[in-house]
Formats: sequence, C-alpha cells, structure tokens
Amino acid sequence: MSPRHDVRGPVLIVGTGLLGTSLGLALRGLGIEVGLQNRSPSSLHLARDLGAGTPAGPDFRPSLVVVATPPDVIVPHVVAALRHHPDAVVTDVASVKGGLSEAVAAEAGDAVARYVGSHPMAGRERSGAAAADSDLYQGRTWVICPHESADAGAVAAVRRLAIAVGSLPVVLEAAEHDAAVAAVSHVPQLVASLTATRLADLPAEALGLAGQGVRDVTRIAASDPMMWSAILAANAGAVLPHAEALLSSLEEVVGALRTAAVDGPGAPGVMKAFAGVIEDGRRGVARIPGKHGGAARRYAEVTVLVPDKPGELGRLFAEIGDATINIEDLRLEHAAGAKLGVATLSVLPARAAELTAHLEELGWRVMA
Amino acid sequence: MSPRHDVRGPVLIVGTGLLGTSLGLALRGLGIEVGLQNRSPSSLHLARDLGAGTPAGPDFRPSLVVVATPPDVIVPHVVAALRHHPDAVVTDVASVKGGLSEAVAAEAGDAVARYVGSHPMAGRERSGAAAADSDLYQGRTWVICPHESADAGAVAAVRRLAIAVGSLPVVLEAAEHDAAVAAVSHVPQLVASLTATRLADLPAEALGLAGQGVRDVTRIAASDPMMWSAILAANAGAVLPHAEALLSSLEEVVGALRTAAVDGPGAPGVMKAFAGVIEDGRRGVARIPGKHGGAARRYAEVTVLVPDKPGELGRLFAEIGDATINIEDLRLEHAAGAKLGVATLSVLPARAAELTAHLEELGWRVMA
Repeated sequence: MSPRHDVRGPVLIVGTGLLGTSLGLALRGLGIEVGLQNRSPSSLHLARDLGAGTPAGPDFRPSLVVVATPPDVIVPHVVAALRHHPDAVVTDVASVKGGLSEAVAAEAGDAVARYVGSHPMAGRERSGAAAADSDLYQGRTWVICPHESADAGAVAAVRRLAIAVGSLPVVLEAAEHDAAVAAVSHVPQLVASLTATRLADLPAEALGLAGQGVRDVTRIAASDPMMWSAILAANAGAVLPHAEALLSSLEEVVGALRTAAVDGPGAPGVMKAFAGVIEDGRRGVARIPGKHGGAARRYAEVTVLVPDKPGELGRLFAEIGDATINIEDLRLEHAAGAKLGVATLSVLPARAAELTAHLEELGWRVMA
Repeated sequence: MSPRHDVRGPVLIVGTGLLGTSLGLALRGLGIEVGLQNRSPSSLHLARDLGAGTPAGPDFRPSLVVVATPPDVIVPHVVAALRHHPDAVVTDVASVKGGLSEAVAAEAGDAVARYVGSHPMAGRERSGAAAADSDLYQGRTWVICPHESADAGAVAAVRRLAIAVGSLPVVLEAAEHDAAVAAVSHVPQLVASLTATRLADLPAEALGLAGQGVRDVTRIAASDPMMWSAILAANAGAVLPHAEALLSSLEEVVGALRTAAVDGPGAPGVMKAFAGVIEDGRRGVARIPGKHGGAARRYAEVTVLVPDKPGELGRLFAEIGDATINIEDLRLEHAAGAKLGVATLSVLPARAAELTAHLEELGWRVMA
C-alpha cells in the first residue's frame, strides 16, 4: 500500500485542546504514530480515548513536535521540546507569531534553527478536546512563518504536516502574518463586539426589526472572551494602527452626525462625509478575494421564496440537485414572524436563466 | 371567485424606483387597478412596460396613494397627494420616519389625518425599476408609524396593503422606529464600511487570509453610497448616541492596545479591558431573535466537507432532500485556493444524528 502522506513520524503533540486533539486524530487516521502530552491528566486521557494518540513518556522520540498550548506558555514549551528532542523539528500553532522565534532563540540558542512557527487558520466556536474533529484542518489555510535562521528541512517538515491533514500551506514573515490577521481577523472581531454591544439595551420591538445585515456584522461577537483577549493583547502592536485609523474615521462620522442632527441633513459637508465613508468601504470590500483565491468573480443571484414548513427546504435542495447546475454560494434569510424564507443561490451568470426556468417549472416562486 | 386581498383600489404609486415598481407588480398580480407617476418619463414607461400599472393623469381617482420617491422629496409629494385626492389615504415608504407627519401637518393641516407613514423593510443591492420584482415584499416586516391624529381607517388601509403583498405589519411610533433602525441597521452599515476601509490598502497576501468572519462583517459595505448618505443624514439624531457610545468604547480599546503594545500583553488592565469588550458583545448578540421572531433557539450544526467540483453541492442538496429532515439554516464556506468547501447545516438537535448517519452512509465526510 502506498503511503497517503510524507510526514516523518512519530509526532509529539503538546497540548490536547481543540487544535492538538484534532491534529492527533487526523495524523492517526493517516497511520502516523502520535504521542500526546498535557498538564491536565483528564484532558490527556480524553484525547487518548478519542483516538488522538498515546500519552508520551520522557523516552518518546519524535521527529516532529507540535506545541498547541495556550499562547502564554508557547515559548517555554517550544524551548523544552528543542532541548529534550535534539533531532526533532518543532512548530507551534499560536495565532500571533511576532517575537516568538526571538524569544525561543534567547533561550535555546542555535537550536532555534529547528523551530518554525506556524498558524493553521482552523477553529470552531466550541473549544477543548471534546470538540475535536479529524477533519478540522481540511480545506483551511495553514500559514508558515520561517525565521531567518530556520533550517530549510524544518520548514519543509511543517509544510508536509499541513498538506498531510488537508490544509493549504502559505509562507509569510511573522510580521506580515500578524499585520494581515490584525486587519482581516482581529479588527473585525473588535468591531463586531462593539456593534453587538449597541444591541444589549434595546427594547425587544427594536430587535424584532433585525435583518440579515446586523446578523452578519455581529455573528462573530459570540466568540470566546479569554481566547480573544489573549489574541488582542499579543497582537496589540499590529492591531493598534488599524484601531487608531478606525477611531479617527469614526470621529469624523460623529462630527458629521452632530452637524446633521443640529443643522439638518442638508447642512454643508454632511452628505460628502457620509458618501466618503460608504465609498471607501466599497473599495475595501471589493478587495476580498472570491472563491479559489482568485479575484472576486461576479455570480448571478437567483432568489427563491421558500414556505417555512417541514420538507420545503429539503425539496428545494433535491430539485436544485436534479438540475445539475453548480451552486457557488447560498444564503438563507428568514423574516421575523413570517412563514416564508428567502434562499439566494449564486450561480455562473450563464446558468442563471436555466436554473430560474427549472425552478419555476417546478412551482417555486423565483425573483430573478 | 373570492378576492385574495381586501385592499380598496385604485392605488396610485408616486415614484417608480425599485420599491414603487415592485409594489405595482404585486398589486397588479392581485387584480388591483394601479396608477403610476414619475418625474422621468423613461422610468415611468419602463415600469408600465414591466406591468406595474398605467401612467396616471390628473383625473385618476385613487383610494390609496403610496409615495415611493427619494427621501428628500417625500413631504411635498405627500402634501400634494392629500390635496389632489381629498378622499384618499396616503402613505410613504421612507426608511426614516421622524418629523414627516409634523412636516406634512404644517402644510396640509387637518388633512394629515389621512396620512400614515410606513417603512417596508424590503430592498436589494440593485435599485431602479429594472430590478423590481412582484415578490419583493413577501415575508418582510412592514413597519407602520401612525401619528396621534391619524384616522384609524387610514391605519387599517396601510395594514391591509402590507398584508396583501405578503408582508408582516408591525406598528411602532416614528421615534421608536428611527431609534430601532439606527441600532439594527444604520450603525451596522457604518461599522461595516469603516471596517472594510481597513482592507483597501492591504497587500494581496493579507487578503488571502480573509475568512468567513471578515466576509460577514463587511458584506453590507458594498451598499449604495447615495442612498446610505441620505439615510444617515436623515436619521442623524438617532444614530448619534450610538456612534458616540461606539467612539467612547473604541477610545478605551485604543488605550488598552497602546498599553499592551508598549508595556507588553501582561500589563495591568489590558486583559480586563479586552475581555470586557468581548463579553459586552456576547450579551448584545444574544439578544437578536432567532427564526420566527421567537427567542434564539439552539440548533445542532452538522458540518459537511464538499469537494469543490461541478455537481457535488447539487448532489449534497439532493441527498439532504432525500433525508426529508428540515434544514433550519445553511452556511457555505470556501478556503482561498482550496478545492474543498465546508457546508454547515442547522437542524433540530433531535435530528442531527440521523442526518449525520444518512450523509455518512452516502460517503460524505461529516464533522459532527
């Protein structure tokens, strides 16, 4: 039987939370020997019972060590792993990479050559070994941040690990990585939380008017406070310039709102200020890549009204399936209190008319 | 044949943009006589050709007038309608309601009793008659804002209109309506635009790390600048207190980021400040009602890996349909560059195991 991967085992996983346990499950599924370590015996035994690997004693000899502990204890664990396993490559999965290799080098000296930091962009709303899944890394981006003195062989070992569990490896410098996640992840988390805070004291009737817009803007506000506090604190330097720019834009908006509230909506400068904010946002959102990492591609949208009774959405899915037209994206929306949902299907523009005709023929109400 | 509605016609629609033309189509579909007026003859003729009604001359005698013009000319059109049609009920569809009835009363005197402002919460990313659809109002909330001197019969006529075109009428005072949409619609639009602006100058590699979070937060940033500038200007008084509170929270966040950037993530007060922001956001987002306007209900999520090749998503839909399990919600996610999508299906907790077993039996990779 030909191997389905080229990871050199055994692999030692330090930390059996969501990321560590999921990685163990994925590697065990490939037939790779996995040793597990965790400060808490009960968490360790849960990961073992789930099939993520075997508790590793002091004589376990890994080729690769993955440190998947909370961010504040990453460095001592990486240093310890480099010392105890003098032939192993060591990586970690922390979501902020700046300063890690310097801190490791300060303690471990030249052994830092065997350390390569990385950040698999995988996660769930739940945490801990109990939420683990062998498919967690499938289809995700796994950022690798080699420092200047990293061995090429160590970088290649981390890349092979990412590919083996189904991720897409992307190489970035630590500072580039931290600046990128500040803008595309940490700032959106902050504003989602600040916007959701505005809903906390509204009357129930007001919340009844909440549509898809505010739901989308605030969805990630449900995230874990401890994890996010640690991430924001660790990446403060990269988040700060974005937060300052946001603050300054918001000050201008508040100024325009005050003028409009006092002097009326037609007061000089008011429309220009608001239009500028919306225009700038349009330029920004247009830069988010579409599917497959390419430039944003325009799909045609076909909107279908779905009676909200059992089986109707299932029937829609079945009948879309029968059409053998590739659905590129799908969005569902429900009005509060209405017995009707709205499904928006994205398809290649060339196929939209065909899908519309197919669905209308079957009795669906379609908004072209 | 029994009538499918109890709207008393004819209906005059002033303004043949997206909302006016869509309303005409819906009413014509019910067999109601519709007259159309628009300053621009070409827009008027397009609406007529689409089947939204007939251009109305000065001797058209409506029972109900709907003013669907841009917000800055609503009041003169409402006043003119009250004068020219002394027996008609008059409503409008502007998204900011405060001050309208007072402005109408100042010009039209006691005739204001026949005016009842309203706001159908329907819209699309496209605008104009060409984007119109007879189903635009289906399943949407239609807010009705009667003022103190409004006739009960006029309020009832607007309510019957909303119900006839498939909307759910909700009665709110104008000030309550404006305060509600400030928090659940106008502030989310502002922060989505401000956050998207942060993406405008990022390197392409950084945007390659964009996941579902930032896509959700910034989706509505693609909206129309002219329309949104007018809305923000008109509702400045209600948006201002939320924007000021947001500004003050953001100032605290920037302070904590500066402390963390200078004194390190362990500096006193840093973790407490960030955890407070995330906790407050969690309280706010938890107040958004779930489906059917009820309290948020917990669904179980079943996550399925979908190979990104033609027909696979269709096959998934077909096989979900075969299971005859009601899918309450669905989310699709694609990693940049990965040939794999992740579909998250929400179902009643009691049905999750059954759906998982059904899909696994058919060869799908499911993350429970």
